[in-house]
Amino acid sequence: MHFNAYAQHEDAYYIRKIADEVLVNSKAYDNLKVLTKTIGARLAGSPQMYKAEEWGYKLLQQSGSTNTFKQPVMVPHWVRGGKDEAYAILPNGQKKVLNVIAIGNTIGSKGKPLTATVMLINNFEELEAKKDELKGKIVFYNYKFNSKFIRTFEAYGDAVKYRSQGASRAAKYGAIAVLVRSMSHSTNNAPHTGALSYDEKFPKIPAIAVGLQDADWLATSIEKTAGLRLQVKTNGHFFPDAEGHNVIGELQGKEFPDRFITIGGHLDSWDNCEGAHDDGAGIVQTIEVLRALVALGYKPRHTIRFVLFANEENGLRGGVKYAELAKENNERHVFAVESDAGGFTPRALSFDCNEAVFERMKSWQPLIAPYGCAEFFRGGSGADIGPLKSKFGIPLCGFLPDSQRYFDIHHASTDVFESVNKRELELGAVNMAALIYLVDKYGL
Amino acid sequence: MHFNAYAQHEDAYYIRKIADEVLVNSKAYDNLKVLTKTIGARLAGSPQMYKAEEWGYKLLQQSGSTNTFKQPVMVPHWVRGGKDEAYAILPNGQKKVLNVIAIGNTIGSKGKPLTATVMLINNFEELEAKKDELKGKIVFYNYKFNSKFIRTFEAYGDAVKYRSQGASRAAKYGAIAVLVRSMSHSTNNAPHTGALSYDEKFPKIPAIAVGLQDADWLATSIEKTAGLRLQVKTNGHFFPDAEGHNVIGELQGKEFPDRFITIGGHLDSWDNCEGAHDDGAGIVQTIEVLRALVALGYKPRHTIRFVLFANEENGLRGGVKYAELAKENNERHVFAVESDAGGFTPRALSFDCNEAVFERMKSWQPLIAPYGCAEFFRGGSGADIGPLKSKFGIPLCGFLPDSQRYFDIHHASTDVFESVNKRELELGAVNMAALIYLVDKYGL
Repeated sequence: MHFNAYAQHEDAYYIRKIADEVLVNSKAYDNLKVLTKTIGARLAGSPQMYKAEEWGYKLLQQSGSTNTFKQPVMVPHWVRGGKDEAYAILPNGQKKVLNVIAIGNTIGSKGKPLTATVMLINNFEELEAKKDELKGKIVFYNYKFNSKFIRTFEAYGDAVKYRSQGASRAAKYGAIAVLVRSMSHSTNNAPHTGALSYDEKFPKIPAIAVGLQDADWLATSIEKTAGLRLQVKTNGHFFPDAEGHNVIGELQGKEFPDRFITIGGHLDSWDNCEGAHDDGAGIVQTIEVLRALVALGYKPRHTIRFVLFANEENGLRGGVKYAELAKENNERHVFAVESDAGGFTPRALSFDCNEAVFERMKSWQPLIAPYGCAEFFRGGSGADIGPLKSKFGIPLCGFLPDSQRYFDIHHASTDVFESVNKRELELGAVNMAALIYLVDKYGL
Repeated sequence: MHFNAYAQHEDAYYIRKIADEVLVNSKAYDNLKVLTKTIGARLAGSPQMYKAEEWGYKLLQQSGSTNTFKQPVMVPHWVRGGKDEAYAILPNGQKKVLNVIAIGNTIGSKGKPLTATVMLINNFEELEAKKDELKGKIVFYNYKFNSKFIRTFEAYGDAVKYRSQGASRAAKYGAIAVLVRSMSHSTNNAPHTGALSYDEKFPKIPAIAVGLQDADWLATSIEKTAGLRLQVKTNGHFFPDAEGHNVIGELQGKEFPDRFITIGGHLDSWDNCEGAHDDGAGIVQTIEVLRALVALGYKPRHTIRFVLFANEENGLRGGVKYAELAKENNERHVFAVESDAGGFTPRALSFDCNEAVFERMKSWQPLIAPYGCAEFFRGGSGADIGPLKSKFGIPLCGFLPDSQRYFDIHHASTDVFESVNKRELELGAVNMAALIYLVDKYGL
């Protein structure tokens, strides 16, 4: 189809209809309330994972999916195993409680507290410089979120290695546990969890995230009190892998039923929060796009897949399985978009594709910009759809809402329903529905 | 100065320095906490108005103002006078309390409750059609905020006439009071106040805003229960005008000390809230721009005025006085920018100027866009700086942050410090400081 002025007018009109449908009749906010308040935290392998899958399956059906199914996938089953604890032992013998949470996938301290002198380490360079002093110590990584980045995901990208690699890098030199400053610039003291991966070459030691105010206190106290000691206790362990599921709805294509456009988010969340922004928002937006298109009587040319991915947080098994099965089944995939950056006001679409495809997409910017995503650029997309790239090399897109508030609540107990704004959430669905509509109409 | 590629590079560098200074060392958030939590609501004429003036004066001095002064201005002194009340009288004689707040500038019900049958009126067309049925009644305007507008200020512009004119238009036909559905699309039941103006030709009657959930309940109940009656009581009245002040700081220009660039917000707020977004945010951003420029050792070419305007909410006397005095004093004004649309993440700059000046401004868009204000367009600016236009015809600019959350809290008890995000607030100051820097450097 030729993308001319008339078509552009017609497209603007249809996208306006999508926006009206969502802004007037959206169920996304109410659905998010059920997911967060009735089901709540839903880490892979947990009982709530199954409840969330059942909820998602029914909701996809109710929202007009013409073919709803689950893809079994074995997921890790890590549990926190109890309350994580950390204390500083003050010179007078009293203990100061630190606001902490064990980092996901971490091992427990074997049922007993570990007590040792704490070493303040500001970055990995300092770790290497002090490697001979770390044996038997607890390392406290105090690398700060860099507030100068305008896009906060860049600050996260800059800092997250201390959470993901810090334990093994300290264990290499004999440290017995690590505390890690939370990956956040929030103004409160809530600690932020997230995944680590152990390097199998070194001993596995407990890793614990600490709230920002306590991190600041600890850094100051270590400098004031030589030999300050910490006591930490964690209880994490893995059960055998569990069977989870990607939960999938479809709107069958009338012209190319065997060519797939995927939109999705991940259904799992960390165990310490409601997972409202991460990624309840992406889930209810995905389902809202389905609901709105069905409500408008839209008959897609391609088959559109609405995917609630399993186990993004500590394994990515759902995303990997989805791409694997697509390959095994010789499916033809065209495009995929993911919402996994929060339910905030829309700002940008990031395209992982070549320059020629990007130029096509960019020509649609004037149609989508009025609804928030005014910035189109080439960049990353989403973790769950990423494996489609290696299998199919297709264009991917990440929906990027405004990022200023995301790391205030990311992986913390403050990621709750109340932190989501109804209209901001809905506008995310509008922008993605508009993109899906254009990709479906014009192909890629 | 020629705006060439080298200059653009130099400007990008300096704006980056401004951003770093603000994002690392900003005092805006802490200052907002003091204004909202220590002083709180600060309607014109109230004791808190004077406290806020004193606070602002000292803070401008501390932030590096080289010349700090107050402009006296007589402001209206309206007081709520007690708790506003409204009940529906149910068929069984019981009363249902409605969550209401009297609209600002409204008169009281003369010390006693008014009781009358309520008429549901959805819009002014319906009011005119039913004009013969209104005598002795209470009119309930249930005009809804239109959720289809993407920029929520358009929904406000569409609906606000029911708050500002509804009382007199109903009084014309003999109504004895009006209830008005709050100007909001929030998901809670908090009522939203704001100003009305009486048409002197008709009797002045009480006007009361009602929360959205109670408005929905009332609309349904009126349809179910013929002759449903309401009881309302308000206590508002005016004291004689009081002397308030515009509070002003300056950074003297080294090249054109007698040419003025103005940046400001309004210091007053409604009496039912902390006025954190409206307009505490604009106030602390204005002061932050001063602090940051001083911290960077910036020596402006023009004199930059940092203005905390008096009495925007129910009189606009501060803005009018500022322009009047500027005219009287034969001041030469170049440009003005206002922040009075909340402390949310920056999105746009709206320029009230001719096409040629706009094209100049637009050429700076690539320098400012990385910090949030990617949209530059011609439109309105800010209420307080508006009078400068009629007096001087100079270009004006309104700083426009994202508007999705603004009318959730606008003029309601929920406009509190906790609803402001630190980084979003700071980025507003960054964008305005960048604009001021460019206007100061290149002139207009």
